Order: sequence, then structure tokens, then C-alpha cells
Amino acid sequence: MLDAVHTPTELRALQPDQLRQLADELRAETISAVGTTGGHLGSGLGVVELTVAIHYVFDTPRDRLVWDVGHQCYPHKILTGRRERIRTLRQGGGLSGFTKRSESEYDPFGAAHSSTSISAALGFAVANKLAGTPGKAIAVIGDGAMSAGMAYEAMNNAEQAGNRLVVILNDNDMSIAPPVGGLSAYLSRIVSSREFLGLRDLMRKFARRLPRPIHAAARKTDEFARGMTMGGTLFEELGFYYVGPIDGHNLDHLIPVLENVRDAEEGPILIHVVTKKGKGYAPAEAAADKYHGVQKFDVITGAQAKAPPGPPQYQNVFGAQLTKEAGRDPTICAITAAMPSGTGLDTFAAAHPDRFFDVGIAEQHAVTFAAGLAAQGMRPFCAIYSTFLQRAYDQVVHDVAIQNLPVRFAIDRAGLVGADGATHAGSFDVTYLATLPNFVVMAAADEAELVHMTHTCALHDSGPIAVRYPRGNGTGVALPETPERLEIGKGRLVREGKTVAILSLGTRLAEAIKAADQLEAKGLSTTIADLRFAKPLDEALIRRLLATHEVAVTIEENAIGGLGAHVLTLASDAGLIDGGLKLRTMRLPDIFQDQDSPQAQYAAAGLDADHIVATVLGALRHNSGGVAEARA
Amino acid sequence: MLDAVHTPTELRALQPDQLRQLADELRAETISAVGTTGGHLGSGLGVVELTVAIHYVFDTPRDRLVWDVGHQCYPHKILTGRRERIRTLRQGGGLSGFTKRSESEYDPFGAAHSSTSISAALGFAVANKLAGTPGKAIAVIGDGAMSAGMAYEAMNNAEQAGNRLVVILNDNDMSIAPPVGGLSAYLSRIVSSREFLGLRDLMRKFARRLPRPIHAAARKTDEFARGMTMGGTLFEELGFYYVGPIDGHNLDHLIPVLENVRDAEEGPILIHVVTKKGKGYAPAEAAADKYHGVQKFDVITGAQAKAPPGPPQYQNVFGAQLTKEAGRDPTICAITAAMPSGTGLDTFAAAHPDRFFDVGIAEQHAVTFAAGLAAQGMRPFCAIYSTFLQRAYDQVVHDVAIQNLPVRFAIDRAGLVGADGATHAGSFDVTYLATLPNFVVMAAADEAELVHMTHTCALHDSGPIAVRYPRGNGTGVALPETPERLEIGKGRLVREGKTVAILSLGTRLAEAIKAADQLEAKGLSTTIADLRFAKPLDEALIRRLLATHEVAVTIEENAIGGLGAHVLTLASDAGLIDGGLKLRTMRLPDIFQDQDSPQAQYAAAGLDADHIVATVLGALRHNSGGVAEARA
Repeated sequence: MLDAVHTPTELRALQPDQLRQLADELRAETISAVGTTGGHLGSGLGVVELTVAIHYVFDTPRDRLVWDVGHQCYPHKILTGRRERIRTLRQGGGLSGFTKRSESEYDPFGAAHSSTSISAALGFAVANKLAGTPGKAIAVIGDGAMSAGMAYEAMNNAEQAGNRLVVILNDNDMSIAPPVGGLSAYLSRIVSSREFLGLRDLMRKFARRLPRPIHAAARKTDEFARGMTMGGTLFEELGFYYVGPIDGHNLDHLIPVLENVRDAEEGPILIHVVTKKGKGYAPAEAAADKYHGVQKFDVITGAQAKAPPGPPQYQNVFGAQLTKEAGRDPTICAITAAMPSGTGLDTFAAAHPDRFFDVGIAEQHAVTFAAGLAAQGMRPFCAIYSTFLQRAYDQVVHDVAIQNLPVRFAIDRAGLVGADGATHAGSFDVTYLATLPNFVVMAAADEAELVHMTHTCALHDSGPIAVRYPRGNGTGVALPETPERLEIGKGRLVREGKTVAILSLGTRLAEAIKAADQLEAKGLSTTIADLRFAKPLDEALIRRLLATHEVAVTIEENAIGGLGAHVLTLASDAGLIDGGLKLRTMRLPDIFQDQDSPQAQYAAAGLDADHIVATVLGALRHNSGGVAEARA
Repeated sequence: MLDAVHTPTELRALQPDQLRQLADELRAETISAVGTTGGHLGSGLGVVELTVAIHYVFDTPRDRLVWDVGHQCYPHKILTGRRERIRTLRQGGGLSGFTKRSESEYDPFGAAHSSTSISAALGFAVANKLAGTPGKAIAVIGDGAMSAGMAYEAMNNAEQAGNRLVVILNDNDMSIAPPVGGLSAYLSRIVSSREFLGLRDLMRKFARRLPRPIHAAARKTDEFARGMTMGGTLFEELGFYYVGPIDGHNLDHLIPVLENVRDAEEGPILIHVVTKKGKGYAPAEAAADKYHGVQKFDVITGAQAKAPPGPPQYQNVFGAQLTKEAGRDPTICAITAAMPSGTGLDTFAAAHPDRFFDVGIAEQHAVTFAAGLAAQGMRPFCAIYSTFLQRAYDQVVHDVAIQNLPVRFAIDRAGLVGADGATHAGSFDVTYLATLPNFVVMAAADEAELVHMTHTCALHDSGPIAVRYPRGNGTGVALPETPERLEIGKGRLVREGKTVAILSLGTRLAEAIKAADQLEAKGLSTTIADLRFAKPLDEALIRRLLATHEVAVTIEENAIGGLGAHVLTLASDAGLIDGGLKLRTMRLPDIFQDQDSPQAQYAAAGLDADHIVATVLGALRHNSGGVAEARA
């Protein structure tokens, strides 16, 4: 049947009793596709019926469907004209692993970071209201994403959308890790306090307000009032009509409820749907993470392709070292925003549960909570991906940097990240942190450096300090037995030469070494410095290298405004450029790069060994008299 | 009596019946001080009794008192050893207008941006819990600040603090403007649905849980349960014990309630206190803004010193122009996060109420809501102060820039802001925006330029665009009859010379002109360019100026990583520095500057005419052969 349904228009031509089969086929196709590509699986499986029901009931794409985060959208992509490309998911040139505006009119708003959907849907709803055009907006948001402040901000403003806004709370009692906090406990109480509403109860509950009362006898006010106070008060206090909880895998319930909500004259309405992450695929249901994110796998057995054996992942090197530091120092705490294993802090949590804090998807709170801990004498580490730290930028500035509090930032997923694409790239943190007074900003060149830098963070009490490192595996260097406390603002020489100087920050060091080999083969003696610090810069080292080499190149896994800009500013401040200076900065290009392998991404970015060599040779060839000649 | 109370220790030696008089004197002293200095008044007057009661009941500074925002802390400063400096508030070298760690041990956590207090207090509470040391943490947060996401994130995590955390919700039904949204309506319903709890009711309500049951008969479960469900359910669902509402000006209620809360064995507790902004000072109570922020004033009459007549404020020039644009174009919308008059949008709101959105203190939602509006064909302007836009940085990156949606950003209070000090300075926006692909970043050199740039934003549909401008009055230039659509990425020549080139971005242009006059008097023919755009740069103009002048200087009201860094990067990319280039970048220094007059701040920052001249002369004198000689 799925073969006959290419778009929601064809879906809506089906009879209701055909939808169950369609959902089953959609689930099988999703499993098959992700088995081939790897990617996010559990979340998509949990919303197969919801996906079918929404497109069946609502008039997409006129009605705007906004999936929060978007990693649950594979079934949606299959149903909206992208089935034949579904096995290109997350690959270079293929479909994005998230919703994306440029892919389809059925993706009215792209996502990847969580908790944006209600705000965006409210924008669609209000725009239609202002223009007087038809069209509703539906946000589908998980219970984990509801813990983020911006979801609350949006709910607090939702009333203005009236019945044009529908929020579907997809409660699977999981984000990537089990959810935490008061809201999660509240939702659990609602769900556990009673059976799912039966269809008759649901209709009775809506009798007064909705257009299709099934049981006229149920219009009695007292019964209605009792029904409405059984759950969802928190949402009702913020201005929503609350409906639920509803079994999110029962199409016979979902369809009529959504139809009623669609035709309701009042709103906004929040539908509390309970789903099971990984639903309908036994290996996923059985797994602790419900196959949240998987490698390619065997569909029959569920066995995932093993990653080839290799060096340890950066996240785990960090987690292991911090666990050691905490064994030595009882003031060390670790904070994650819903990423206990992604940040490698699961090790820490097991060893020091009392000093481990998973605050849920709440980066803002994470940072200011850490600042409070630091102000009371603790040594907190905030482990947050570069791209997600953006969400706490004001807290980094206002609560940490201005007060010069020694909060430690472990910034994972710095630089390009591969299959997750532009939304997850950590491209800006050197720029947005190194512009702040009081901050120390480090980048690890390999996993041994990360050990030293984690140790250095632990001992650095005089102000905020950050270390960034990439997604994925280290380089295979031996890990130090005893970590070294690095001198703040001092780089290291990796290789000494005479003609070319490569000033590297972060893991491009490996490419710098390859480039140096190529340059030496051409007779160009090459120095490599691992600067270690973007702030404060190793001014003495940089000045010396600039003064003693024909050409110098900086390289970093960050956009404009980072290391290169700071080195150029130093050179300008000191007047080093006055007499002529062949200095080039290599950085991420001024575009958002789509998903691909990290290697391919860095090659496209012009940040590999070949490009370093080309940059050096180009600078050497360049007519140094350019400006002076033009002036003359 | 106030003369005898220099610290909370002396306060705690008083008898309860002396506190009323102390509060009255404290209120009078606050009014007198702010009459002399200007500053925030209404908020402080609203918490006089609360300030006295908290310090009387809790063991500050061991118990950590965190004032949210901090503009209500003047009475607190008077009571905590800072009375003799209170008339230096907000002045250069004087007391900060907010709480500040370096000022007093009674300010354990500085503030100025809203909604951070619960996170910080939770940090203090948890740190004490981990260390096993005594000490509670008290956050005092307004109802307006409760609309921000980070307050919710913190509440969602508060349960772990147990009885060490006390949140006092100071509900005055005002932020700077009247509050908006579902939460505000909810609080109003609680307060309006019943009388304040009498003392007996309060004690009865707490009978089971708290250590001092007054009426043993009130321990009956049903009565207790009924009491607890009368209000505050939303907070209870998030894990708090809710107490309230309580009259925040009645010390006879406040003191025993706080004592009970202090000694409670369970928690966290949220106390809902109702206060009146401007309380006890008739002119403030009568004013629409309750004297939120005032100039110096006559204490008897309340008459505020009039600002000397001068050019229009930037905010109002923006607001008036946008109102005109909206008259022409029905798709233009305006969004503010609780700053309708501060952003000049009050004019817009009056003229186009249906297209005006005050989302409350909710910058994250504001930006993504705007992105949703833009995705549905509207032309939204987000008017947010530079420093507060930091709070929506991830939304700017993820929802606007990556999707290349034409959201317009009107960034007020760019650069140094005077009396509000470091926490309100807009020092980083050029850096954190210009590093983003797809973004257009402008800065207005004067109010006429702001008119052009507002118009340019309105017509710019191809992607995100921002215009920044400072706090305060314009330069007095004539406003254009007909606004001009600026060509994206093109600067303008303000003066043409031959030897020195000043490349200015923003309102330092006036100082650049003064500097040029001084330079010309020394025989140095000077060109001045107003670059208008930090991104994209006017590459042709910059290359021409660099090639044809002996020395070039960039100047901007922004920290490292902004215009100067981008110009240097351009010069390096193009190889213009290879042959020698006297180029200097003038920018905000790498420190957080305390409050002072803007003029004094910019002089201290080295960004006035004298410093421009000195920089130019220094560069001209500098031995151009530095690097080359060192190399030789």
C-alpha cells in the first residue's frame, strides 16, 4: 500500500481502515532504510501512527507541521515524496537527518536543536491569522524537549494563536537519556494516574467545546469540569486546552481526536499523546536507548555494524579523565544538559553520582547553576556540545565571564561533525568565547592533549576556562600516565623548521603535519606550532615565529573571528604587518556546510593538508609588493 | 533607627515591633538617595519590607540571598554596609546599580539580566548540600522575570535542593511594562480569586509540614489539602511547596511566614508575595511605570529633572521609521521582549496593534517566533538590546541564519551604555553575528543613517539582516525626508584625503571626524569612510583605501573579532599585508568596563578622537621594517 502513497494527498484518499496497514508498512520501510544508512531510529518508530494520522487529518502542507528536533521525521519524509531518496539519509548529497526547508514544502521549518517547534508554529499560526488566510500550525514536541526554557516561553505566548495552534506533546518518557526534573515527574503522574482516555470519554470531554459531540448526554457541566481537571493543569494554566493522555499507537483513537481538534473553535489545544520509543521493532524496544541513534544494522537481528576498532573517542577520554580528577578533588562536579553518554559523563555519573547533574535539555540553567556552584567554592565542569552552548551564550557572558567565575566548559563536537550536518556543527565557539574578557579558550590537538587540558581546567581557579574537542575518535596517541598542568597561554612546538610556520589550533594538527611533510619534500623547511590557546594567545611564540619565517599560516576548526583573527589582531597591534608579513588564516568557510563525512567536509572547507600546502605556496608566490606598488 | 543599623547583624538585634519604623526609614532613605542619583526606584520601593524581613529572618550572608535582575537592591545595599556610598549609585567609581560580588559579601551573585536567580540559588544550595555545610539560598524573582525560559528550567530542577532553596516570587504585576502571557494571567487569577491568606490560615496551611503549628486542630488532612490546592498548582506540579499569596508590605505576616519557611524540613518552597511597585511614594505609585527608572527628582514633588533638550533618541527614530514602513507594508511586524518603550516600539504598537508582539522576557521565543513569521511571508523586526540578544544566540544561528530567513534585527544599546555598566554593554554583537554565514550586519553612524538602515532592513528579503545603534540621543543631523535603500555591503566616503584613512563603523564616526580635523591641522590629509556594513564588507572600498593611504585605522564600538578582525582577514586573504601595510584596529578593550558616563567609558576604552590621533601618529612613526629586520 505504501507503494501507492507518494504524498499526503494520496494518503488522504485512503479509507480509515486502511491506515493500520499503511502504518505497518511505513514502520517496516523506516526500519529497512535506517538499517541501510544508520541514523535516528527509535524516535521515528514511536511516531509512525502519529505521522500517518496528522497527514491524514490535517491539510499539509497548507497546515504547517513542525517536528521538534526533527530526528523523528523519517516516516514523515517517506510519506512526503522522499521515499526514493530515503536511503541517502545523512550522507553527502543525500537527505538531511532532520527536517529541512530546502528539501520539501512539507518541511516548513527546519530543526535539529530541540524545543523550537512551538515558537515556530506560533509564527506560522499568527502570520495566517494576520493575513486572514486559512491554515493551522501543528507542533509535535517530545516530553524531553518540553524541559527547555524556550518551549515554556512559547507556551506562555501561545494563547494569541487561538485555534490555529495545535501542540502535540509526544510523551515517550525519554529524550536521548531518560528525562529528568519536575515536568517529567508531572507527566508521569498524569499518565500513571489513570487509564488512557477511551474514545467515548474523549468525546464526552470535548462535548461542549468541540464540533462533533457524540454523546449529547455528556454535556453536563460538572462532568465536563471533572474531566478537564484530571490532568494537564499545568498546560491549562498557561492557556491551553488540554486533551489526553491518548495512546499514540491507536489510530482508531488518534484520528477522531485529531479531527475534533482540527475543527475546534477554541484553542490553542495541547494533545498529550503517549508513545513508545522504538515501537514495533523488538531490538529497539529492548534496548536501553531504544535505538535512539544507530549504526547500520541487520534488520532481522537488530545487530548493529560495529565501528572499526580504533582510538578512544574524545568524549570518553574526557569523561574518564574528569572522573579521575573528581576522585582526587571532592569539589569537582559535572553537569550535562541531557547528554550523559554523549559527553562521556556516564562514567563520572557511575563513580560520583552525588556530584553529577543531568539538568535535562536546559543549557541556560546548566551554565548559571554551574556559576552558582562555583561561587560557593565548587569546581563545576559544564560539558556541552559547541552548538548547544550557543543556547547558553548570555549565561556564559553575564553569569560566568563578567563575574570571572571559574566554571569549566568541556566543549564537545567542536568543528564539523559529519552526518548531523550544519545544525550540529561547532563552528563558532572560538569566536564567541575568545571575544569575552576573562576567558581562557583551549583546543585539544589530540586525545593526550585533552587529558592535559582537562587536568588544567580542573586546577584553574582564577576564572572561566574552556576546552574544545571534536566528535569522534582520537588520533591513537598514547594517553599520558600523569596529566600535565599546562601553562596558560603557552603553545608548544611540534616541529621546528625555518621557512614556513603553521600555527595550528585543535585537531587540524594532523593535517598540518601531513602538509609539513609535503612542504619539506618541496624543500620548504616547516615549523609546526600547536598553539593550544586561542585566548590568551602565546604572544611571544607567535611573534617569534612570524619574525623568523617567510610565511605563516594559522589553521583552526572554526569560522572567521577566531584564532586567525586574534593572531592578525596581535600582528596589527604590534605593528608586525607594517613592514610586510606573509600571514594567512585558514578557517571554516562562510557557508553552512551540509552533512557528509568529516573528512569530506574538511576537504570542502579547504582545511586539509593539500589546502595548507596550496595556501603556503600561494602566499610564497604572491607578489609582496602589491599594496606598495598600487600606492606608487 | 536606620542610623543604628549598618549591617543585618544589627538588624537582627531589633525587636519585631521596631521593624516597621526601620522599613519606613529605609524607604525614605531610598527615595532620598535615588532623588539625588537617579536610577531604579519603583522596584526597590516595592521590596522594602521584604528586604527587611529576609535579612531579619535569614542568616545572611551565610544564607545566600540572590536578587533577580538586581535593580530592586538599593534598600538591600543600604542595609548591608553600603549606605554611606548609596548616593554614588550608577556613577563612575560608585556603587553599581545592580548586585555585584565585588561590592559586598551580601551580594553572593551579581545580576542585571533577568531570571538567573533560581539557577544561581540552586547552585549555592546544592554546593552546601554536597559540602554538608549549613546555609540556605533565597532567590527573589519578579513575576515578569518568571516568563523567561531559564527561570522555568531552574524550577524544573529545583527539587534536588530540598529545603535549602527558597524562591520568593515577588508579584507586582509589572515588569518594566505590564507583563504578558499565560503565566501572568495565571498569577492574576490566583491573587484575584481570594483574599490574602491571613496569618492564621497560613499557619494552618503549614501545620502538617512546618515546625511551628499554631493550630493543632488544623492538621486535618482534608483542610490541609484544600488549602494547598487553592493556588500555585503550576509551581507544585514542578516540585515546589507553594505558599501564598501573602501581602508583601505586611511585616506581621512576612516575618512569621519566612521563619516557618526557614525552619521547614521539606522543600523547595515558593512563597508568592504580592507587592506594589513604587509602594509608599505617591508620585511613583501614581505613575504608569511606577518610577521604574528615573532621572534625579525632587523628593517632595516627584518632579524628575528634565533631560536637556537635544536630538531625538535612537530608539525613537527607529520606532518612528518602522511605524512608517509598516504603514506602507502590511507584512511588517514588530516584536519586543518586554521593552515596548525602551525599543521605541510603543509608537508602532499604537499605530499597528495587531502587528505588534510583546512576548515578555522571552528573547529565545521572540527570535524563533519571528523566524516562523518570516517563513510564512511576514517581514518581522525583532527589536532587542544587544546584550539581551545574547540570550537568543542559538535561535539566531539555528532558526534564522542556517535557514537564511529574512528576520530583521534592530539591535539597540550597542556599544557602551553608561550607568548600567558592564552587564548591559552591547560589546559583542558584531563579533557574534558577523561570524555567521548569510547575515548582513550594519551599524548606524547617526540617526539619519538609522532611518536609511531601517528602511533597508524592511526591503531586504533575501536573508537575515541586523542594524545596531547606541543608547541615547542622536547627533542632531537632519532626518531624511525620504529614506534611502542602501546597497548591501557598500560603505560611503565622508571625507576624502590622501595620507590617513579612518574606517569607521557606527557612531564613533563623530570622533573620527574630530580626529581628522586634528590630523589635518598637523598636515595629515585624512579620508574618513563610514563602512556601514561589518558584513559583507565593502571590499572594493577597503582595498582602495588601504592601497592609497599611508596608514589606515578601523574603529568600532565592539570587542575583538568584529570589524577590525574582518578587515584584517580581508587584507590577509588578499595578500595585502604581504608587502607592508600600516593598518590598526581600534576596538573595545579586553575588560568589562564599570559604569560611568558613555563619554568617560569611551575615553577609558581608548576610542575617542584623541586616541584615534595617537594611534595614527604611532603607526606613522612605527619602524616599518620590524619583521623584515628581525628576519634579516
